[in-house]
Amino acid sequence: MIVRDLNEAKNTERHVFSKGWDSVRLLLKSDGMGFSFHITTIYAGAELEMHYKNHLESVYCVDGTGSIEDCTTGEVHRIKPGVVYALDKNDKHILRADAEKPMIMACVFNPPVTGNEVHKDDGSYALEAESA
Amino acid sequence: MIVRDLNEAKNTERHVFSKGWDSVRLLLKSDGMGFSFHITTIYAGAELEMHYKNHLESVYCVDGTGSIEDCTTGEVHRIKPGVVYALDKNDKHILRADAEKPMIMACVFNPPVTGNEVHKDDGSYALEAESA
Repeated sequence: MIVRDLNEAKNTERHVFSKGWDSVRLLLKSDGMGFSFHITTIYAGAELEMHYKNHLESVYCVDGTGSIEDCTTGEVHRIKPGVVYALDKNDKHILRADAEKPMIMACVFNPPVTGNEVHKDDGSYALEAESA
Repeated sequence: MIVRDLNEAKNTERHVFSKGWDSVRLLLKSDGMGFSFHITTIYAGAELEMHYKNHLESVYCVDGTGSIEDCTTGEVHRIKPGVVYALDKNDKHILRADAEKPMIMACVFNPPVTGNEVHKDDGSYALEAESA
């Protein structure tokens, strides 16, 4: 059994920072669960274009509000606590947090993230990560 | 892209009830993510012995407090918002919610739950489910 606390993990290398967001990787590939589990903060007012070409991801909103735009269909879905979106088609998308406060998201990746990935400018993960 | 709202899913067959808990299965095997994702409520004061023999499960506490006892080691870990536990060894465990209020948990199962499972008295899933 693995037990981890978000507040303790924030002070470790599990906590990664990028432009407009940061993420605490509570469970990674090395934990052997077959998925990874992250608590990600999308900063207030952030607009993030992302495209995980080789990962499926689900994202559950714990706090905050915003929207997700499906770049394939143009549809925009409202995000609030209790809403989950799942990128079951490796969907290219734009995530926007409202200006009032950050969005706190519980994210699951399959295959699991290794922890060494870096988002590239086009919103994907680096190639090494994508083949992980 | 799949988008679902917890409050809407509560009024559907995705919402299952059992003794001491209920669960809204926001993502199931049929969604093709390779995992399932559930928001589970552990009722205040509930004590649940569980043993998922053929599923790995991670559980992240969104709200409420309680504890988890590892039946193999006897260790008891405190649960509060921000704590995740992962049953990476199919660990038999006892989950206890404090008396004050329910615990709200974000759960991930691998392999994904189909939605037809029923907890058996010994805390496992029925055989058909376990082979899912």
